[in-house]
Amino acid sequence: MIPMGTVNSDDGGVAKVSFATPRTFATTFKSDLKETLFPDDPFHDFNGKTLPEKAKKSIKYFVPVFQWLPSYTRKLFMYDLLAGVTIASLAIPQGISYAKLANIPPVIGLYSSFVPPLIYAVFGNSKYLAVGTVASSSLIIAGAIEKRVHEADDPQLYLNLIFTATLISGVIQLILGVFRLGILVDFLSHSTITGFMGGTATIICLQQLKGIFGLKHFTTHTDVVSVIKAIFKYKHEIRWECTLVGVIFLIFLHLAKMVKQKKPKLFWVAAIAPMAVVAIGCIFAYAADAKKYGIAIVGPLKKGINPSSLKNLDFNPKYISAPIEAGVITAFVALAEGIAIGRSFALMANQQIDGNKEMIAFGLMNIVGSLTSCYLTTGFFTYILYIFYKFKIYSLNFFKHLFVYFAGPFSKTAVNYNAGCKTQMTNVVMAICMMLTLFFLAPLFSYTPLVALSAIIMSAMLGLIEYEKAYHLFKTDKFDFLICMAAFLGVAFISMDVGLMLSVGLALVRALLYVSRPASSKLGNIPDTGLYRDVEQYPGAISIPKTLVLQLGSPIYFANSSYIRERILRWVRDEQASKDSQGDDVEYVLLDLGGVTSIDITGVETLFEIRRSLEVQEIKVVIVNPRLEVMEKLIVTNFVDKIGRDRIFLSIQDAIEGCKFSLEQ
Amino acid sequence: MIPMGTVNSDDGGVAKVSFATPRTFATTFKSDLKETLFPDDPFHDFNGKTLPEKAKKSIKYFVPVFQWLPSYTRKLFMYDLLAGVTIASLAIPQGISYAKLANIPPVIGLYSSFVPPLIYAVFGNSKYLAVGTVASSSLIIAGAIEKRVHEADDPQLYLNLIFTATLISGVIQLILGVFRLGILVDFLSHSTITGFMGGTATIICLQQLKGIFGLKHFTTHTDVVSVIKAIFKYKHEIRWECTLVGVIFLIFLHLAKMVKQKKPKLFWVAAIAPMAVVAIGCIFAYAADAKKYGIAIVGPLKKGINPSSLKNLDFNPKYISAPIEAGVITAFVALAEGIAIGRSFALMANQQIDGNKEMIAFGLMNIVGSLTSCYLTTGFFTYILYIFYKFKIYSLNFFKHLFVYFAGPFSKTAVNYNAGCKTQMTNVVMAICMMLTLFFLAPLFSYTPLVALSAIIMSAMLGLIEYEKAYHLFKTDKFDFLICMAAFLGVAFISMDVGLMLSVGLALVRALLYVSRPASSKLGNIPDTGLYRDVEQYPGAISIPKTLVLQLGSPIYFANSSYIRERILRWVRDEQASKDSQGDDVEYVLLDLGGVTSIDITGVETLFEIRRSLEVQEIKVVIVNPRLEVMEKLIVTNFVDKIGRDRIFLSIQDAIEGCKFSLEQ
Repeated sequence: MIPMGTVNSDDGGVAKVSFATPRTFATTFKSDLKETLFPDDPFHDFNGKTLPEKAKKSIKYFVPVFQWLPSYTRKLFMYDLLAGVTIASLAIPQGISYAKLANIPPVIGLYSSFVPPLIYAVFGNSKYLAVGTVASSSLIIAGAIEKRVHEADDPQLYLNLIFTATLISGVIQLILGVFRLGILVDFLSHSTITGFMGGTATIICLQQLKGIFGLKHFTTHTDVVSVIKAIFKYKHEIRWECTLVGVIFLIFLHLAKMVKQKKPKLFWVAAIAPMAVVAIGCIFAYAADAKKYGIAIVGPLKKGINPSSLKNLDFNPKYISAPIEAGVITAFVALAEGIAIGRSFALMANQQIDGNKEMIAFGLMNIVGSLTSCYLTTGFFTYILYIFYKFKIYSLNFFKHLFVYFAGPFSKTAVNYNAGCKTQMTNVVMAICMMLTLFFLAPLFSYTPLVALSAIIMSAMLGLIEYEKAYHLFKTDKFDFLICMAAFLGVAFISMDVGLMLSVGLALVRALLYVSRPASSKLGNIPDTGLYRDVEQYPGAISIPKTLVLQLGSPIYFANSSYIRERILRWVRDEQASKDSQGDDVEYVLLDLGGVTSIDITGVETLFEIRRSLEVQEIKVVIVNPRLEVMEKLIVTNFVDKIGRDRIFLSIQDAIEGCKFSLEQ
Repeated sequence: MIPMGTVNSDDGGVAKVSFATPRTFATTFKSDLKETLFPDDPFHDFNGKTLPEKAKKSIKYFVPVFQWLPSYTRKLFMYDLLAGVTIASLAIPQGISYAKLANIPPVIGLYSSFVPPLIYAVFGNSKYLAVGTVASSSLIIAGAIEKRVHEADDPQLYLNLIFTATLISGVIQLILGVFRLGILVDFLSHSTITGFMGGTATIICLQQLKGIFGLKHFTTHTDVVSVIKAIFKYKHEIRWECTLVGVIFLIFLHLAKMVKQKKPKLFWVAAIAPMAVVAIGCIFAYAADAKKYGIAIVGPLKKGINPSSLKNLDFNPKYISAPIEAGVITAFVALAEGIAIGRSFALMANQQIDGNKEMIAFGLMNIVGSLTSCYLTTGFFTYILYIFYKFKIYSLNFFKHLFVYFAGPFSKTAVNYNAGCKTQMTNVVMAICMMLTLFFLAPLFSYTPLVALSAIIMSAMLGLIEYEKAYHLFKTDKFDFLICMAAFLGVAFISMDVGLMLSVGLALVRALLYVSRPASSKLGNIPDTGLYRDVEQYPGAISIPKTLVLQLGSPIYFANSSYIRERILRWVRDEQASKDSQGDDVEYVLLDLGGVTSIDITGVETLFEIRRSLEVQEIKVVIVNPRLEVMEKLIVTNFVDKIGRDRIFLSIQDAIEGCKFSLEQ
């Protein structure tokens, strides 16, 4: 008799199943912890370095500015100058617009584009991320605070609570980053983000109808139904002059976008279009005395850079729940957005991005921001993400393009984007532009018509509603489509947090269903090969007489163990039903565990139960190719000894030969 | 050039990768729905039957009494009579004890062992389950109602709310069963149940110290700290006579258990010991005028069977939240316990148990119970489960034993337990015994000393604290141990619902970690075979030049896709670092998807991203053996076309040969 539990290969070589002693708890725990919290192995460069080298590397690691600044050159600065100015020209109108969206003084929006970019330049990780306020967080933060304090009743208290929410949001981001809880962000799927952004864009667009129509009264609710009702209620207030100006601006912005789409080289047209709208709006409002026609303007803007807002922070227990709620939600949303963007950019540039370090940078940025009259900032998505999606971010070309547009007009040198020509310095340039604006130009912007801001926001938001992507989801994955629509409809018809929670909840249910109902399949031999494949997928595969080969997958553990047991017993029953007619009984059940990544105690007990159930029917269970972790658990729980080492094989082929051999005996 | 994407087997046979058109949404949805809700395929007998046959089978399926009653024989009845009487002798003292535990009149406990078993006999699925009140549910239901209404303040209202909670619990169970949501119970792992039962047993034992010490005052809190404080506070009330009697009873019950353990044939000694304690207690209390010594008795018990409690149901909105809370928690706990037990028994007898049908039976039982003055009942765990664990339920022998003890004294025939000698009739016998008791014996039990009841409960509960199992968990799986201890400590030191939620929460976190951090491994060729195995597990496996073979596992989807991407890039980086020194670059990355059971849109996008990231480094990605579902998703999302069909292989061997071939070109 040949020794069982060994591989009897064609050329007579023999390879044994490894029954090595399981690793110690400390070893596996360390390895698990590393995979959970440090999947990107951020310290891989540290191996084999001396202590001073390590210290130097650590500083460079935690404060990236030391990494890129020493090798910074004037030539690089030229690129950064251009990119910084372009982004600043976008940040100014957006800063004012989103501050209006959050019901706070417009100048706060400008402040928020000054200090945070400087902080990010020091601690930020990603070369390709600009920093500024974003629409969705503006709306969330305003919505949460409005629940407790109305801006109209006490604007100062309202503003203070916004600063407090910013601080809380920053602290949460910092904590998440330090404890490397970036894993939480993984649970926001692409589908959730698509739906959430679409829904948010929809309600933000609807909010802008107030500005476009020049209405004086409006609803504070954000859902579609309330907004449409409000428009009908106040339709007598609609000013056609205002609407006309708004529509013209919208068409202008849309055309600028189209230019960019048709002629990618003219990308800067779209980039400076919002600034142009603001400038034209200001001139128009100043020259034509716009107020006469019911076209409201932003109003006085203070000169000077950010004052301290340390004393504005308000931790009064009476109101604290509102900033906490706002802080928690925005922390996660801003993180998800910022990290998703930074990561995608980095991916294209093949620069490993550490999401957790990014969180630390965002956190510091918002903590310092909340002390210097800034409100919540994050990765600059409304703009970058927009191009991003339009250009199908997932083509490498796009980034090259983006870079050409930033660098193109000034320089004719070949674009060497892989060399990393752009640095965090862009943010410094942008901050300086903003400072100059605050010192000298702020009063000019006081003439900005609100309708211009509404047009800018609307134009930016319309690009975020991705019909095609939703349709693609519908075509390819109905459940993903459902998750997307839950977010979209939830946000549009109920509220942003409900929509987000609905969608994440559905996604988690799906995740749990995935793990609680793992696919298993019956394998057959593909003729003339030693391969065993799913008989449903490969109808030509031939069943093995007296033997049922089942392939399991996924981890086996409490949430799916009773399913797996019942499914296996069903496979056996079905097999018997079909074989009974041929007078050919099942004598062996082979469980291919090659796809089982881990197993817990309940899972091992299930294997015991399956073995017992089948033994009552005089069917023998054979285990094929357990992976490292699974084998360790099987050894430690004595499963291996109870089933017998001669019942565990390295490959299906070996197992079948082993079974045949004992059948023939 | 040989055609790629084909198997080039030894004997020249050629098997192609299957690129069959994906199944339609309706097909996959139907199949998914079946796997999710009908994993046990309950209607498998229905295929190819005529309509009347189907109708007959349906009735038998939904009302199992029609299945077993027609073939019922007098001989079977003898076994059932014995089992029924034995269980009744246990149900009487337990019914009274647990009713005291729930602070309701003791006779309700007897009522609860009359109607529900009859209902279960008709609709119940499991031959091996007895029905009655259980300690944990009694305590949960009392705890939830006490929060709103104190028993001492308004006993009638309190009782009414208990009935209402029972109704709600029954309705929930029925709904869960009808909608086949038994899947929810899967999320209670063995570790959670072990910890929860241990914790519950601990606090129930501590509660009994009141009875054992004969205290008049006590705390209404259940946590360990409060109870110990209360004992110190009221230590002057301790009556030594009462304590002495209690300790004697406890020792007696313990000895009876020991007898059973030493001489399994004397099993019935342990079974009737509680009844003996009650009988001795009654006689003693009657004869010795126990009250004089501070030994309280149960007090008057009404003669007669269950009155209607239809009018007692109370849906007053003022209190309704309490019965709803109690109903929801007890529904799940009772289900989990009942199903776990029924299933394990059935497993040994190789009878497929449908958990969802069981829920329907439990639900009906509690709905009818709530209308006939019964409170919550379920599978009879305190007793059966006790033996269960003591005898290491997982040996077939145990059940044979159990049966011998039930049937042994009366019959000398060989035990043919596989033939299914015991039926649901046991419950009918038990109900009849209970009826006789209620009609004739109830007044006798009014002399039962409370200390006897406390001793019975304590004795039953002590067996549920499973040190060995917890130690086994500690030895084999630290995380399972943590889940178990969370339930134990949570229940013991905070409250039952908090403990349960903590533990389930931890278990879910683990489930999500399992799926968000699936193991991947680098494969090498085992010398002289065509097998590729984990190089860590099989250190002898040899890497393939210029090629990195990675084995993935688990589903790939939003929660783990960014981890998988980063992990793969890390594998490549590590491989390059080690190969750089040998001047041997990685040119191919083979992803073995054989263990990947499913993939979602985010997962497919991740594969795209991985491919792009690697192509920047001039590394080609090759896919090996995608399973049916995965292949369908890859086709529908155009991944297959984009990567090229010649980059997808059926086995690692083929893929390596294919790569080698194009390297040599």
